[in-house]
Amino acid sequence: MGISAESFLSARRQATIAELMRFIEIPSVSTDPAHAQDVHQAAEFVAKRLIDAGIVDARVHPTAGHPVVTGSWRHAPGKPTILIYGHYDVQPPDPVAAWTSPPFVPVVRADRLFGRGASDDKGPMMIPIKVTEALLATEGALPVNVVFLFEGEEEVGSAHLGEFIEAQAALLAADFVLSADGAQWRADLPSVITGSRGLCALEIRLDTTGKDLHSGRHGGAIANPIQALVQLLASLHHADGSVAVAGFYDHVAEVAHGERALIAAIPFDESAYLQSVGASAADGETGYSLIERNWIRPTLEFNGIYGGYAGPGKKTVIPSHAGAKITCRLVPDQNPHTIANAIADHFRVRRTAAVRLTIDVEKGVAWPYAISPTHPGLVLAETILAEVTGKTPARVRMGATVPIGALFKRLLGINTVFFSFATADEDYHAPNEFFRLTSLDAGLTAWTRYFRALAGRSIQAV
Amino acid sequence: MGISAESFLSARRQATIAELMRFIEIPSVSTDPAHAQDVHQAAEFVAKRLIDAGIVDARVHPTAGHPVVTGSWRHAPGKPTILIYGHYDVQPPDPVAAWTSPPFVPVVRADRLFGRGASDDKGPMMIPIKVTEALLATEGALPVNVVFLFEGEEEVGSAHLGEFIEAQAALLAADFVLSADGAQWRADLPSVITGSRGLCALEIRLDTTGKDLHSGRHGGAIANPIQALVQLLASLHHADGSVAVAGFYDHVAEVAHGERALIAAIPFDESAYLQSVGASAADGETGYSLIERNWIRPTLEFNGIYGGYAGPGKKTVIPSHAGAKITCRLVPDQNPHTIANAIADHFRVRRTAAVRLTIDVEKGVAWPYAISPTHPGLVLAETILAEVTGKTPARVRMGATVPIGALFKRLLGINTVFFSFATADEDYHAPNEFFRLTSLDAGLTAWTRYFRALAGRSIQAV
Repeated sequence: MGISAESFLSARRQATIAELMRFIEIPSVSTDPAHAQDVHQAAEFVAKRLIDAGIVDARVHPTAGHPVVTGSWRHAPGKPTILIYGHYDVQPPDPVAAWTSPPFVPVVRADRLFGRGASDDKGPMMIPIKVTEALLATEGALPVNVVFLFEGEEEVGSAHLGEFIEAQAALLAADFVLSADGAQWRADLPSVITGSRGLCALEIRLDTTGKDLHSGRHGGAIANPIQALVQLLASLHHADGSVAVAGFYDHVAEVAHGERALIAAIPFDESAYLQSVGASAADGETGYSLIERNWIRPTLEFNGIYGGYAGPGKKTVIPSHAGAKITCRLVPDQNPHTIANAIADHFRVRRTAAVRLTIDVEKGVAWPYAISPTHPGLVLAETILAEVTGKTPARVRMGATVPIGALFKRLLGINTVFFSFATADEDYHAPNEFFRLTSLDAGLTAWTRYFRALAGRSIQAV
Repeated sequence: MGISAESFLSARRQATIAELMRFIEIPSVSTDPAHAQDVHQAAEFVAKRLIDAGIVDARVHPTAGHPVVTGSWRHAPGKPTILIYGHYDVQPPDPVAAWTSPPFVPVVRADRLFGRGASDDKGPMMIPIKVTEALLATEGALPVNVVFLFEGEEEVGSAHLGEFIEAQAALLAADFVLSADGAQWRADLPSVITGSRGLCALEIRLDTTGKDLHSGRHGGAIANPIQALVQLLASLHHADGSVAVAGFYDHVAEVAHGERALIAAIPFDESAYLQSVGASAADGETGYSLIERNWIRPTLEFNGIYGGYAGPGKKTVIPSHAGAKITCRLVPDQNPHTIANAIADHFRVRRTAAVRLTIDVEKGVAWPYAISPTHPGLVLAETILAEVTGKTPARVRMGATVPIGALFKRLLGINTVFFSFATADEDYHAPNEFFRLTSLDAGLTAWTRYFRALAGRSIQAV
């Protein structure tokens, strides 16, 4: 006699959208102290949705920063347990004037729901809650065990998430993480994320004299710190674009030929991409395609350089100092600390006597992350994406850093499967953020199938 | 019965100092439009001194900028003619708060006359005027022919001096220039200047994308303009510090072994020099001493570099552009235009497809200058300096640019002998500028002897 979870969700589609709009109306901007109360209100909103869904132990946990919301349902003995991750905080709406409609007054236009956080991550994170609600309402039980973990600091670096996870390891115990965050690469191509790059950062500064000197009176006598700097920086790359730092590639995990073949098969319009960023040509390490260079190869990037006079016209000075900021995007299994120190050593052995070298290695790093393409949770995500979209999903890596993958791996020893229905074109972190209602529908269908299908699979932590 | 010019000068010493103090009281700051009337008043002051000295045709010439003051005495047929150069404008006094006594309230402390312009160049340029006055007053004639040329734009680049010289070539005709400007190198060592370096300037800028890009999402795909820039800039020098630009040294005039031996013989405390500028070590082209590198070797200096983020902390961007400012100090017989273009060509042939290269070669240049060490006017200056100081003068080159040497050479075809009694330690261009009264005395004696001795010499324009 009972209706299916799918029918339940269909019948409540408008109510779900209305609920999501109320969620978006809460300006939970985590970076702005003026919005601290709004962030807390958003946490309470999420806990209430979980309780309404039937997650009776849902609660808001205070942290040294913004709250974490958890809830669990562990009544499927012998079945896999998934840790569902998402975040309820949002980016600042600036520049507000660039929005067609106010950022915290959600509105649907042309089947898209506009508002700050619609795509990142309020829309996507509501999906597993609503699916849980539908299954519990219609079947009285979930096919698998679930734990929810929603944080309020994703947009500000998840500063307190690590200590929360460590403290609550028992509460959070699961076979793997299924993340509602982590937008798909493109709207026209379903995809699963198989890895993300790590990050290390350092700054180099060369000092020579106490103050800038007249280039005529002193030129030729005294070291020019920019000259010394460009020599050092130029030595960091080979002519083929590869990094020349000793040991840089030592622990780069070999990428299976199969993965490279899959990357090569992804339809990608390189000239459209270059045009979109205003570049006249691609550039980078030879021997790899543009996508490979961005996904599976580490980089050493100069983020900034300074020294001497940079205003209009000329100024005949020998600068007193010069410096540069460097970050590396790292791939499995590079150690960010080891790499930063290798670069520092590269400078130390090459410095000349006439410059005083200061190297500031940033303590904070992000670790690269990769999941095995055979991880059953990932394979299931691919299967269901293919069913729901009618297309074969691509396996993509993130060129950027997605810290939670490495965080859960390090603290709980489990992998993360990204199963978000946001797409990278939805202007999150920009004005006029939106979430496609078709993606909401697809997500509700896909997560319901995922829960059900997972119950029949054997999961070993990979 | 008449007294000697020397006695005349001695008797009027206090009056001369008082007159110089009145001159310094006029704030003839040429760079500041608010002081335009003061600059004009200083020109009138100079013309009046010349007339009082017996130079009856002295006059103030308007130019498109500040005035030029001239005067001549050509009643020594068969004798050499010298063009006496100096300037009556001064540097701004900023920072005024750093002065012990107000910059335009001259005061004598410990045998030093303090005040803006005391050393550069009001004190030194008053010397030939007072010597002329003394000789005409006591002997009724000068031993040689003289033409005075005092400008009011030296501190702002002598923008209108060239066209004035060209227009007044007949008035200014002389065998050589004797300059009251061009401070001696050191207070402890008399010296004559045998050359100065030239200058060319250019800026290079590399553009890649329309805006800074996220280094994760795009790192590896797109050229990093700082990486391209440091590669280009690093290619400008060889490992030995010499310049790697093709043709850079092609026209560098060979320096006689004798001149290098003289330079080597100059007492010079390198560690004291390095300490004075705050440098831990000297640096530059191998195979040359510190002084040689500063005097007789050309340099290619980076004056500034910019690109990306230079604020506190890190910012994970791939910059959209990067650039650098470059100047070269050039030696005889390098052509500043040729050198700037050679550097531009160096960049053009090495640029990569992924960057858009912009090179801005500055049209304004300064030419290097050198006078033959056997020029009779120079040899005479050395002889008299040795007599007056009791020390053998050093032959020095200016690492900096002294444009008037090349200007007179180019426009009038004559050489310039620098015969200033200012010294480089007198804080001109800085607070608490001063002129040693002992230098005033030595200058009056030396210029009197110079006039007299020159009458007995044969001068050929070299």
